[in-house]
Amino acid sequence: MSEFSPVKALKSSQVQQWHHEADVVVVGLGGAGVSAALTAANAGADVLVLEIAAAGGGTTALSGGLVYMGGDGGTPVQQACGYGDDSKEEMYNYIMACTGENADEAKVRCYVDNSLDHFKWLTENGVEFKPTFFETKAPQPLTDDGLMFTGNEMAYPFNEKCKPIARGHSPKVEGEAGGAFIMEKLIASLEKTSARIHYSARALSMITNDEGEVAGVVARIDGNAQNIRARKGVVLCAGGFIMNPAMVKKHAPKLSKANLPLGNPGDDGTGIMLGVSVGGAAINMHEGFVTLPYYPPETLIKGIIVNAQGQRFINEDCYHGRTGSYAMEQDKGRVYIICDEETFGYPDEFLGITLLDGAETLEELEKVIDVPEGSLVNTIGLYNKYAEQGIDPVFHKHKKFLKPLKPPYAAFDASLKAAGQGGALYPCFTLGGLDTLPTGEVVREDRTVIKGLYAAGRNTAGLPRTGAGYASGLSIADATFFGRQAGASAAAAEEVTL
Amino acid sequence: MSEFSPVKALKSSQVQQWHHEADVVVVGLGGAGVSAALTAANAGADVLVLEIAAAGGGTTALSGGLVYMGGDGGTPVQQACGYGDDSKEEMYNYIMACTGENADEAKVRCYVDNSLDHFKWLTENGVEFKPTFFETKAPQPLTDDGLMFTGNEMAYPFNEKCKPIARGHSPKVEGEAGGAFIMEKLIASLEKTSARIHYSARALSMITNDEGEVAGVVARIDGNAQNIRARKGVVLCAGGFIMNPAMVKKHAPKLSKANLPLGNPGDDGTGIMLGVSVGGAAINMHEGFVTLPYYPPETLIKGIIVNAQGQRFINEDCYHGRTGSYAMEQDKGRVYIICDEETFGYPDEFLGITLLDGAETLEELEKVIDVPEGSLVNTIGLYNKYAEQGIDPVFHKHKKFLKPLKPPYAAFDASLKAAGQGGALYPCFTLGGLDTLPTGEVVREDRTVIKGLYAAGRNTAGLPRTGAGYASGLSIADATFFGRQAGASAAAAEEVTL
Repeated sequence: MSEFSPVKALKSSQVQQWHHEADVVVVGLGGAGVSAALTAANAGADVLVLEIAAAGGGTTALSGGLVYMGGDGGTPVQQACGYGDDSKEEMYNYIMACTGENADEAKVRCYVDNSLDHFKWLTENGVEFKPTFFETKAPQPLTDDGLMFTGNEMAYPFNEKCKPIARGHSPKVEGEAGGAFIMEKLIASLEKTSARIHYSARALSMITNDEGEVAGVVARIDGNAQNIRARKGVVLCAGGFIMNPAMVKKHAPKLSKANLPLGNPGDDGTGIMLGVSVGGAAINMHEGFVTLPYYPPETLIKGIIVNAQGQRFINEDCYHGRTGSYAMEQDKGRVYIICDEETFGYPDEFLGITLLDGAETLEELEKVIDVPEGSLVNTIGLYNKYAEQGIDPVFHKHKKFLKPLKPPYAAFDASLKAAGQGGALYPCFTLGGLDTLPTGEVVREDRTVIKGLYAAGRNTAGLPRTGAGYASGLSIADATFFGRQAGASAAAAEEVTL
Repeated sequence: MSEFSPVKALKSSQVQQWHHEADVVVVGLGGAGVSAALTAANAGADVLVLEIAAAGGGTTALSGGLVYMGGDGGTPVQQACGYGDDSKEEMYNYIMACTGENADEAKVRCYVDNSLDHFKWLTENGVEFKPTFFETKAPQPLTDDGLMFTGNEMAYPFNEKCKPIARGHSPKVEGEAGGAFIMEKLIASLEKTSARIHYSARALSMITNDEGEVAGVVARIDGNAQNIRARKGVVLCAGGFIMNPAMVKKHAPKLSKANLPLGNPGDDGTGIMLGVSVGGAAINMHEGFVTLPYYPPETLIKGIIVNAQGQRFINEDCYHGRTGSYAMEQDKGRVYIICDEETFGYPDEFLGITLLDGAETLEELEKVIDVPEGSLVNTIGLYNKYAEQGIDPVFHKHKKFLKPLKPPYAAFDASLKAAGQGGALYPCFTLGGLDTLPTGEVVREDRTVIKGLYAAGRNTAGLPRTGAGYASGLSIADATFFGRQAGASAAAAEEVTL
């Protein structure tokens, strides 16, 4: 297939034969793709889906399945759990606080305005949420409870700007199978439509007409390059690029340090390159989610996290993604979790966070983690002085997690080390991709629309924009909601001429 | 001119008339452009230069004019100043340490291998360097001395990895006129060649042949859009994008916080967009140089810098660009410089670093900068304990700058505040642009070459890649050296057919 490349489009005038035709061609059958295809098909479009794997699901199916939803009086689940006072403004402010200067305000506004409708759409398509609350601070519930806090809602500095409101909706299934559950339901819905799905189909290059508008896509199906005419549009939903190390090194070099890529093999950046090949702007490419999910056990949050200077650097009760983002920037990646007998607990063994040793005194503890003499004496001395009073004026950890640390102490090593040197695992994925309008239309650098091209999910830069302000559930919310937007826009588009 | 756009190329088949023709068309007459044009012309090419301003100079002419050069036994200036032991390996290691995971190893290697020759080329074109050393730690010499340390050479962690060797070459002119001096000399050299220069000429869009190869450029000259045929190539040397706030917000959002863009009005990103419009990959777009040049006076380096937690966060003797990069990431941008009677001095008034107050005790000082009670007692207590011994095991400041701080103290506010809120000035410029080979050829995402297109300087992602590891002189070294490379490559290229 060497004559095709995702970075160089084919001209429709060079196409000898169209092997397939459809109104809307969707590339990728993960959370974004299935939502796009389902919406376009239900709008009456003739839809063809190209999925690179032998089955649908994408990275959404590998995830825990949290969906960030709320606003305007709350979803029925929020209402049942006491968060019926949610409002659009509160939700908007929180997502904006999360995404900071990287935010796409128009997308945030659009999602907030339609989030309750999105909850309805998901449930109508079989994705159920149980109206019960999961209390523990954890990356996700392992119960079938339907609602939880999913980010930094309760933590500084977010709690200064926004009222803490739970918006993390977890599908009604136990364990980590929430994402698979969502995909199973949505694909089942799609299969009831007229949409055709080609599995093991890899998109190779875009096809453009003489005006540079997108008229189709070349894909390898059954081992052969086939030209697929998209009369109304191609919707790129082919994921991010965390599985393409060269692309990560080039566009998100800081993520090269993180050592556990989260994704499926299809997250190789092809979808982004395809969009760029026809003039799409790729933005936020340097950003990613990097995490250090050192809790549960929740008790460890009552410990402190220090760096090579023996200093704290973050409120330990913030979201694990925020902790990870800060941790990886510490000098030489050196990060230690300090606890005492009362707060001791082992983090998930899988994560490579290792118990170093116990210590009877702070001086001993300094030796255990090899920080300057006197540094922990200072740090823990000050922390304890304020914890006695139930306050943390230095890093603003919530009083729920404050207690003075007393001997004997213990230290875990959560350092991010170079490849092959051991150290903790820092899972990560990318947050950059094609720039799109809230409609799902892909835009050029000057934000003019590329006719015939749409995108959603991690193929785009969507709602979540930073690791330091990530909230679980933002990615699936973004993928499924803006997948629907893209599918609707493509189905309603006028035909792209050849 | 609304029918032309830097993000959409014109097809040569649509060109009715070629208003100008040349072998090599250079866009921009700053450090990169003049070097490209001069080299191409001296190689026998028919060269046409398009400069948007009424005169040449670009951002290089606004700069202090430091050029980072050395390696392999040293330049004559290095030799005269006792740095004749410089080597390619040491220089390579230092630049790689500066650029970290963002580095382009091939470019670094190419520059190191040819740096002494580049010194020769500059001097042959009239850019003289006096063989004397400037000792003071400062952003640049205000004398006509020819050599200085220009970055983090003496500072942790660079001094752990590399032997400190001075490579900052300052042109033989007093004050801040070094950049203007370089441009004056190089433009004078260019004017001796057959190259034609059009001033007040704005590049509007690229022109490509049916293969997508670059065949020319549309420019507005004398108020009219004119089609310019480039037989061998177009060399984009049109600068960075710090003067385009929308582009900064989109591609380098963190730089939106910095409040003093350094550049000329032409640094509006047009050159990068033009390259992207024909398939060029833009990389490192999120990175920039952000600085807090709080010294001179050098004496302040013997003070400490703390954040809202009352903690130090950097060795205060590192390069001001590194300090700035770290400072802007502190909680709420809060940064304070603490000194005592012996180390007191006023930073340059222009920078907006304001004296808050003096204090007789550490407790008073905590109130002056509004940090938690006990925090500065800890920080300064530990700092002083070690400074007495001439060591800083916490942040590794060089012993030359260590002395215990004694009452009375004084505090300056160097915080980065929101627009309109006052605060210190944080000058900045962008470090992202087109991806190029060491030859100056622009490449696509898959690193295949775009025939007919070359670029150099801040139009590209060059040698300097991060603010935290920047060294003064890297940008002009990069612009002038890779400008030469691009000019030579374009002059030697075969003709691009129409």
